[in-house]
Amino acid sequence: MGNYAIIVAGGTGNRMGNEVPKQFMLLNGKPVLMYSIEQFYKHDKDTKIIVVLHPSYLSMWVQLCNRHSFFIAHKIVKGGETRYQSVKNGLDTINGKGLVAVHDAARPLASVRLIDACFAAAIDKGSAIPGIPVNETVRMIKGDAIELINRNNLRIIQTPQVFQTDILKEAYKQPYREDFTDDASLLEAMGVPINLVAGEPGNIKITLPADLEIASLLLKIAI
Amino acid sequence: MGNYAIIVAGGTGNRMGNEVPKQFMLLNGKPVLMYSIEQFYKHDKDTKIIVVLHPSYLSMWVQLCNRHSFFIAHKIVKGGETRYQSVKNGLDTINGKGLVAVHDAARPLASVRLIDACFAAAIDKGSAIPGIPVNETVRMIKGDAIELINRNNLRIIQTPQVFQTDILKEAYKQPYREDFTDDASLLEAMGVPINLVAGEPGNIKITLPADLEIASLLLKIAI
Repeated sequence: MGNYAIIVAGGTGNRMGNEVPKQFMLLNGKPVLMYSIEQFYKHDKDTKIIVVLHPSYLSMWVQLCNRHSFFIAHKIVKGGETRYQSVKNGLDTINGKGLVAVHDAARPLASVRLIDACFAAAIDKGSAIPGIPVNETVRMIKGDAIELINRNNLRIIQTPQVFQTDILKEAYKQPYREDFTDDASLLEAMGVPINLVAGEPGNIKITLPADLEIASLLLKIAI
Repeated sequence: MGNYAIIVAGGTGNRMGNEVPKQFMLLNGKPVLMYSIEQFYKHDKDTKIIVVLHPSYLSMWVQLCNRHSFFIAHKIVKGGETRYQSVKNGLDTINGKGLVAVHDAARPLASVRLIDACFAAAIDKGSAIPGIPVNETVRMIKGDAIELINRNNLRIIQTPQVFQTDILKEAYKQPYREDFTDDASLLEAMGVPINLVAGEPGNIKITLPADLEIASLLLKIAI
């Protein structure tokens, strides 16, 4: 028994229009990925941390860890072509039972309180998927029409998503599908109900360059 | 003929947990609403600007205008209980033909480029609704299930939304419905197709206190 965190940092950074993938970009002088790892360490120093990296960035990461004197123990696993394959590679290194959190490296601001809550909910209900409500009008393009969606029932889904290791490993035996955009999708495809918990507006995903500056600001104004 | 902008600032600010409604809160020392007005003035100084205010805040607004030496001409109209009623009150003061932009006062960062683009698209296609894609997984709560939604077709809808004055006035003859969350909804309910244009990630809606600080940062890093 033990708890695991798979931190998915397999991307190669095309979307940012920048050669450095977003997980290695500096947030207040420190790579984004280090924040993500630290939060799980702060949650519970016994969490077994697995970082999934694209092989081309392995030596860069080792250098970054040296330069920043980053000593939190973590296992490095080779990423795949898709997020699905990257998580699967991480899961393949887990043999024990317990809970596993899957977390996007590009969400450096997940609070310890949120991580605690996700693990607690997963103990209770088998899984935990953080989601936040949407404050804006949302529409869906359907052919020529642009249909209004009832935003009261919408949730923007975040990570960490926490599951029983054996159930998630079972779910990842299903072949890849394009609509597997998060880990909960794989459970649903097996008919396993998922358990929504309250996410955090500040748990942003670093996608655009401005997001790094917003994250820096959020770090300053957070408790 | 002429162009109009109805800036909806009818809120009384319960959601912010603050006594001052968000449209009057200071962004870099200046009330949010002043930014929203200024952007339409910068777009075209001949735009007839109509600001819809809750009556309780009229004297506060006049004082703020004096204190900030804010001289951009605008007509003040009394807000209603709902956004629907506020926009309707604004529309009732428009007699001429032309285009009308409806804009949320809480979006102080709509760029002049975006406003220009919305008016241009509305001349061409009859209406313009700015929307931005969603980078995150989105789910919809349906009873006990939490269904995944194809995010490729989702758009988060912003303002300004621009219409022909006579069509929007016609649309606002329909009685209020809860699902009228934006002005485009009213056109759709009449069977008028709406025209989506590219919104701006930086055109954020001030909803939470942290959004003011994010807006301040975006002002700094914008062109």
